[in-house]
Amino acid sequence: MRSGLVSLLTDFGPDSRYVAEVKAVLLAPAPGATLVVVDVGHGVRRHHVREGAYLLRAAVHTFPAGTVHLAVVDPGVGTERRALVVRAGGHLLVGPDNGLLWLAAWTLGRPEFRELVHPDLRRIQVSSTFWGRDVFAPAARWLALGFPFEDVGPPVADPVLLPAVPPRREAGRLWGEVALSDTFGNLSTNIPGEWLEDLPECVWVEAAGRVHAARRVRTYGDAEAGQLVVLVGSDGFAEVAVREGDARATLGCAPGDLLVLRA
Amino acid sequence: MRSGLVSLLTDFGPDSRYVAEVKAVLLAPAPGATLVVVDVGHGVRRHHVREGAYLLRAAVHTFPAGTVHLAVVDPGVGTERRALVVRAGGHLLVGPDNGLLWLAAWTLGRPEFRELVHPDLRRIQVSSTFWGRDVFAPAARWLALGFPFEDVGPPVADPVLLPAVPPRREAGRLWGEVALSDTFGNLSTNIPGEWLEDLPECVWVEAAGRVHAARRVRTYGDAEAGQLVVLVGSDGFAEVAVREGDARATLGCAPGDLLVLRA
Amino acid sequence: MRSGLVSLLTDFGPDSRYVAEVKAVLLAPAPGATLVVVDVGHGVRRHHVREGAYLLRAAVHTFPAGTVHLAVVDPGVGTERRALVVRAGGHLLVGPDNGLLWLAAWTLGRPEFRELVHPDLRRIQVSSTFWGRDVFAPAARWLALGFPFEDVGPPVADPVLLPAVPPRREAGRLWGEVALSDTFGNLSTNIPGEWLEDLPECVWVEAAGRVHAARRVRTYGDAEAGQLVVLVGSDGFAEVAVREGDARATLGCAPGDLLVLRA
Repeated sequence: MRSGLVSLLTDFGPDSRYVAEVKAVLLAPAPGATLVVVDVGHGVRRHHVREGAYLLRAAVHTFPAGTVHLAVVDPGVGTERRALVVRAGGHLLVGPDNGLLWLAAWTLGRPEFRELVHPDLRRIQVSSTFWGRDVFAPAARWLALGFPFEDVGPPVADPVLLPAVPPRREAGRLWGEVALSDTFGNLSTNIPGEWLEDLPECVWVEAAGRVHAARRVRTYGDAEAGQLVVLVGSDGFAEVAVREGDARATLGCAPGDLLVLRA
Repeated sequence: MRSGLVSLLTDFGPDSRYVAEVKAVLLAPAPGATLVVVDVGHGVRRHHVREGAYLLRAAVHTFPAGTVHLAVVDPGVGTERRALVVRAGGHLLVGPDNGLLWLAAWTLGRPEFRELVHPDLRRIQVSSTFWGRDVFAPAARWLALGFPFEDVGPPVADPVLLPAVPPRREAGRLWGEVALSDTFGNLSTNIPGEWLEDLPECVWVEAAGRVHAARRVRTYGDAEAGQLVVLVGSDGFAEVAVREGDARATLGCAPGDLLVLRA
Repeated sequence: MRSGLVSLLTDFGPDSRYVAEVKAVLLAPAPGATLVVVDVGHGVRRHHVREGAYLLRAAVHTFPAGTVHLAVVDPGVGTERRALVVRAGGHLLVGPDNGLLWLAAWTLGRPEFRELVHPDLRRIQVSSTFWGRDVFAPAARWLALGFPFEDVGPPVADPVLLPAVPPRREAGRLWGEVALSDTFGNLSTNIPGEWLEDLPECVWVEAAGRVHAARRVRTYGDAEAGQLVVLVGSDGFAEVAVREGDARATLGCAPGDLLVLRA
């Protein structure tokens, strides 16, 4: 009995029938195998490739090696953009060649990129508006069932990069951008968590043209209610939060905005 | 090891505990079998049988033969309305006899209707307000585990019809109604996609008392941002969309509204 | 082939990547076993332990014996509060020691509480902000795979209680509180359903400082559209509803509010 785990990230919206159709393809019964799908999220803003890329990076590191990550944020569906399969750190990633898979691939380590062209890996009829269902999902399914990575198509030497600003550190200052926010209003950044050791306990957070005093803590419970804190988030990156409050509202910033942490 | 796929559509709302209870019934461990549930959608507007019927029709065709589709939009719960099981095109459908299963059944082909009355197919205690959990879910489970369709109950010759306007074509004009909208604001209709071949590249869309110029295209990428387009949607029916925009807002119409496409 | 069912309740919000990470831990392939996760709900208001406790109680009774219920509403994450495993009525419950598991444990019957301290039941690196993923999820997984309850840690004699007002009955009056509301605006209470037999067919509902006439019925269909009704809900507790309407809006009350039903 073969078992396989597939993660699924899209911008189709929660409770979307398109998600259901992708899962219908992924989960059609296969003799001697059990696939399981985990939803990473479907609330990525429409066509926001960068938001999807950060979300995918935040999620992949918790999944076990062997997982196939299917990600579809695809403004160019039906046009000439390539379809990709990436192998990195023992995981496989499937999605459009528009930068979406980039951060996750490098986080997992030493990515190898291939173009998804093998004709047996797609549905017989391919809708020009729904590659998620007709091209990416069947490929993810076959890969999870053991189809060899090397056979999906030729290597790709020039995958599309994600236009994201890399974080910087210099003289007690950390520059980065807000990567994600969550339902609590906590803000994840692209600043590596270990860089926070450069900073004292009392820090300043610059964002949206304003400066806020904050405390560097280990966990939310170390702060008082309403206090702005900076800590290592559960994804290993620096996070800005307000205990029992909403850092997103307090700072007035959102994913994509620049942010400075300093002494 | 038996595998089975069950699709689930309700108007219980996303993140509803009622959905969880239905799944608890469906997914109780069964020796030698693995059932998998795929959510088709739970955001159908309360008691909108027709919206549920269109959603079910759009989704079923992607599922493999052998799938059991459980659908619960049931304003008459606890009253005298019948419970149905339908066999069509190798699929099974389970739900109330109020028209909900009608479109999907005919799309799948040659439906046979039976009344769900077999006493072993329900939970021992049946809540008068929650047939989804106590009557429909256990029946769907048993059917997915191999219970014979013929044994659920007597044939039904007069299932309740769905009061929906069938689409029409005449002299370069296509009449239909908006069936579904999605998170992108794209509008699915009940007009068969192949009828679009009757129309030239430049078409008019009449809806909500106004007329809009649109282009007939193959995929979103063939249009420019902001342009109104008409194309064959991923469900095989005519779809109206705005590239990088929101056709629902542009046209000011919603599921249930009439729509004309013409030269 | 071992099968196991895990239910999951959090306040992480629907479509949260944190839910995905918890599931990645729960569902990592295990040789010879298949685990299935059912979402009970992720929309519990942030840190509302009592709302989570009522929701868990409403849901558990539908799951089969052997289910592991993982519940995370955890304002004290990363602080000294204990982690618990509870065995009750053949079910297991895993979560923080803050009252969250209390009502479900007593509903299931004769709960035994243990502190979750076994070092093999947690991930190697434990984030101080995400015990749901790093402590509770791996414990739930191991328990579902057969790890013995007795080995998780020492018995707990003094679990934290939930500060909830118990329901009362007296001379044709029933006192309780609103436990849950759903997408239809129906209000579940903590008043046992069988107590409704104390009341006549015409009853009064006192809530939010006002008194409303209502009818005691068996199911929604027994009332006319717009009528306020009182009935035994699908969770076995008294429920207040408006047929084809919204009792929450009609009564102007919400979970946590007091409520009186009387002759």
